[in-house]
This record gives sequence, C-alpha cells and structure tokens, in this order.
Amino acid sequence: MDERPIGVFDSGVGGLTVVKELRRLLPTEDIIYFGDTARVPYGNKSIPVIRRFCLEITRFLEAMKVKMIVVACNTASSLALDYLRRNTELPVIGVIEPGVQAALRDPSTKRVGIIGTTATVRSEAYQTRLKRLRSGCIVSALACPLLVPIVEENLLNSPIIKLVLEMYLSNFRTMNLDTLILACTHYPLLKPAIAEFFGDGVRLVDSAEETSREVAEVLKARRISAPRTHVGSSEFYVSDSPDAFMAVGSPFLGYPIEKVFLEPVWQRDVESSG
Amino acid sequence: MDERPIGVFDSGVGGLTVVKELRRLLPTEDIIYFGDTARVPYGNKSIPVIRRFCLEITRFLEAMKVKMIVVACNTASSLALDYLRRNTELPVIGVIEPGVQAALRDPSTKRVGIIGTTATVRSEAYQTRLKRLRSGCIVSALACPLLVPIVEENLLNSPIIKLVLEMYLSNFRTMNLDTLILACTHYPLLKPAIAEFFGDGVRLVDSAEETSREVAEVLKARRISAPRTHVGSSEFYVSDSPDAFMAVGSPFLGYPIEKVFLEPVWQRDVESSG
Repeated sequence: MDERPIGVFDSGVGGLTVVKELRRLLPTEDIIYFGDTARVPYGNKSIPVIRRFCLEITRFLEAMKVKMIVVACNTASSLALDYLRRNTELPVIGVIEPGVQAALRDPSTKRVGIIGTTATVRSEAYQTRLKRLRSGCIVSALACPLLVPIVEENLLNSPIIKLVLEMYLSNFRTMNLDTLILACTHYPLLKPAIAEFFGDGVRLVDSAEETSREVAEVLKARRISAPRTHVGSSEFYVSDSPDAFMAVGSPFLGYPIEKVFLEPVWQRDVESSG
Repeated sequence: MDERPIGVFDSGVGGLTVVKELRRLLPTEDIIYFGDTARVPYGNKSIPVIRRFCLEITRFLEAMKVKMIVVACNTASSLALDYLRRNTELPVIGVIEPGVQAALRDPSTKRVGIIGTTATVRSEAYQTRLKRLRSGCIVSALACPLLVPIVEENLLNSPIIKLVLEMYLSNFRTMNLDTLILACTHYPLLKPAIAEFFGDGVRLVDSAEETSREVAEVLKARRISAPRTHVGSSEFYVSDSPDAFMAVGSPFLGYPIEKVFLEPVWQRDVESSG
C-alpha cells in the first residue's frame, strides 16, 4: 500500500488523455500532472534539449513525493526514457512499450503503421522494438507535424482535418495496414476522424489506454497501489498559462479542470548522471 | 561609423524574413541572428515567460557586442519591447511601430485588419497604436494559430492553405478592408496566397520590409552605420537543432544558410530591472 500520488508529465495537454484513462482504470490513485506549456511542443526539438526538460520535470515530481513517473508523451518516451531511468530511483513508465505490446497482442499483426511527431518517428523507438519482437513485421512510420496544432485548435470536425489526413495518410491507405499506432498523446482525440478515414480493417492502437494498463500492472506487481477505500484526486501544474491549459485541456481529460498551478521548473538545479 | 553587428532575434526562423530585407537594404552591415528554436513558438505563451526568454537572448546579443537589437518577432515586440528597453542600454527596434506607420502612410487608410499569433492579437499592441494615431480608423484583429506550422511545414502551395485561409479570413473579406497587416514574421511567405485570397484592393503590410527601413533610419540618425566599404556578413545562432534551422530557414532568408551555431541562452544569468 502506498498513498503517494502517481506523477504524470507531458510537453503540454496531450498527456491528459493518459490521465483520463488512469482515472477510469485506477479511481483510488492520486495523480500529479505536469504540462511543460512554456516549452511545448517537444516534437521538433533535439535529444539533449528534451532530456534536460524531462529531467527538470522529474526533479519537480520527486519533490512532490510521487511514487512513480509516467512519461505521458511519445516524444519524451522515445528520446529520454532510459536517461530518466538512470537519473531517478522511481519506477518510470513510458508510452512506447505499452503501445508496442498492444499492437502485437493480435498474433496476426504483420503490417504496422506509426504516426507521431518528427522526433518520435526519427528516434525509431517504435520501429526497432516492433521489428525485434516480431521478425517479418512490416513497419512504416510517418511524422505528421500539423496534427498537434489542429487538435489544439479544436478543429476535429472541420473540413481541414479531412484534407490533412488525406495528405499524410493516403499512402498508408494503399499499404494494407492491419494496425496503426497513434504514437502521440494528442491523437486519441483524432480517433473518430482517423477511423473514418481508414474504414474497418485497420486497428487503431491508442497509447493512452495501453499505458494506463501498464501502470496498473506495475502498481500491483510492486505492491504500491493506493488503499482501496481512498478516493483519488488529481492536481495539475504547468510551466506557463494555467488559464489556457484549463480551457484547452478539458476536452483531453473529458471533464472540466478546476485549478491549475504555475511551476517554472527551469529554476530547479538539475544534476544528471548522464 | 560603427563596425559592430546588428543583433536580430526571433522565437525561431520567422525573423529571417527581416534579415533578408536588412541584407538587401543595408549590405554593408554585419548581422548576428538568434532563433530560440528550443522554445519556439512564443505565440501561445504568457507575458512573464516571453519577457524572460527575450532578456536571456538580449544578454547573449550584448555579449556578442552588437550595436542595436532588432526584435524580429511580433509576439516578442508586442509583449516585451518596453521591458527590454528598460533592461539594456542598446537601441531596441520592434516590428509593431514600423508596421503601424506603413499602414497609415496612405492617408485614406480606414479599415485595417491584423492577423498574427494569439499573444500578439491579445496584447492589442497594434490595435491601440493604430486607433491612437488615426481616430475613426476601424481595426479588426484575428489570431491565426495554424498559419505558423503551415509555413514551417512548407505547405505554401497545398490545397490546405486555401482552406485554412478561407476558415480564418472569410469574415475579413466581407469587411471592405483597405489594409491587412501581416503581424507575424512567418507570414511574408504567405503573401502570394493571401494576395490571391483577397484579390486587388487590400494592401498587405509586411513588417519585415518596414522594420528594415526603420533600422536604416535609426542607424543614420545615430551615426552608427557600418563603413561604406565594408561587406556585411551574417552569423546565425539557435538554442536547438542547428541542422533543422538550416533546412527550414533558407526559404525565409532566400539563400542557403551555411553554418549555424548552438547557444543555450538559458544558461545565462539574467537580471532584470523590472
């Protein structure tokens, strides 16, 4: 039993899709969420810069006495997960491995598409892992940089999203994919539009759902779940513009965010062991 | 006479449209450019955060011994110009005043539209100044957050840009604007698409051109121009991903960028006098 909260972070609001699933699956757990809204997006930034930002956030979550860190951001998971594991005593869970496991749960999975940010795709984190676990699996990955601003602008039902999906995904439609991994925590909000674009026959894997299952398993295995009678709560911190986070974040979470605290994490001294 | 370089900065590549005009108008001047690519974009961030970022960059440019600072970013000019002037001895030139002056140069200007980032529009810097200088002038401003990622994705000739302009600007088309201020240094690359959208009759004011004229005037008035025989050069610094800056930046500048240096400005101690 462990009453400490779970720490979850993302570059901005996207990781709230993971919080939403965690709340649903683990209603007894407290959650502390950090969104790095002063430096969002991460998807077009470099490895050393992303690692530094992630370490600053980890130091903040440690100071908040969390029992576990969930990197609810595909870019940060792709580029900084091992680095964070070397730099904290806490268990660190990313979104990549749960997504890969979910994609391969069906033994007939053979042709997998991956969409994400430029940094996620370039890291080849998904591609390498999928090919290692299933030889013969055909993997294609594509960076779709416009999808994040489109989600943040709430254009989920506009004609623009159709045109943008056509531009990015029309090649994928001709490739007979059986599975498409939504390798960005913003994309669960695009699930209906993407499902409509592909029609039946392509399974969409949503890292938010899969990651919350992995969190539940680790809590159980390590015996650090919250007491069963506890009613879990959530607290939200950002590095900039709490009001904007409240407004933009609520659709990701599925319910209104009542209070957001400002936390300039770059004022922390960080030390890394490399 | 003053051989020191001119310092120019922006949140990313957009300010290169100003450098392009400076090079054309002032071929004898040396330029040092800084793009804050680790923290781009600024347009959805708050005033204190943007001010801090701008002050760090100003301290870097001071250390590089520039003779003047050009804030080649509408968001930073809207929110941090007076703040920077209080915090440096150097002359500081922004993009707002030159854009306003250009809009009002034609005495018949009466209906002015402004498009820019959320932060620029919300600051009301353009709106306030225009109304003060020309009473009775009707001013409408609109934030267009998708335009920057579209320019950075180089979708200038895609069907997407037409649809996005339609979404943002169709109200403006019914308002009989005589002038539209492109209040973001990314937008000069959209000039052909925007001009096609409005047809004749709407004058597009491009802050890059106007700002370089203002720089030329200040150099002359203060007698700090470079010697006439000098051949000006440019040096480029970024806070992240020099290679990406080289690739994305060249269309803004109009010629290939050969070398870009990495400069993590947040490692500087900054002190502000408020």
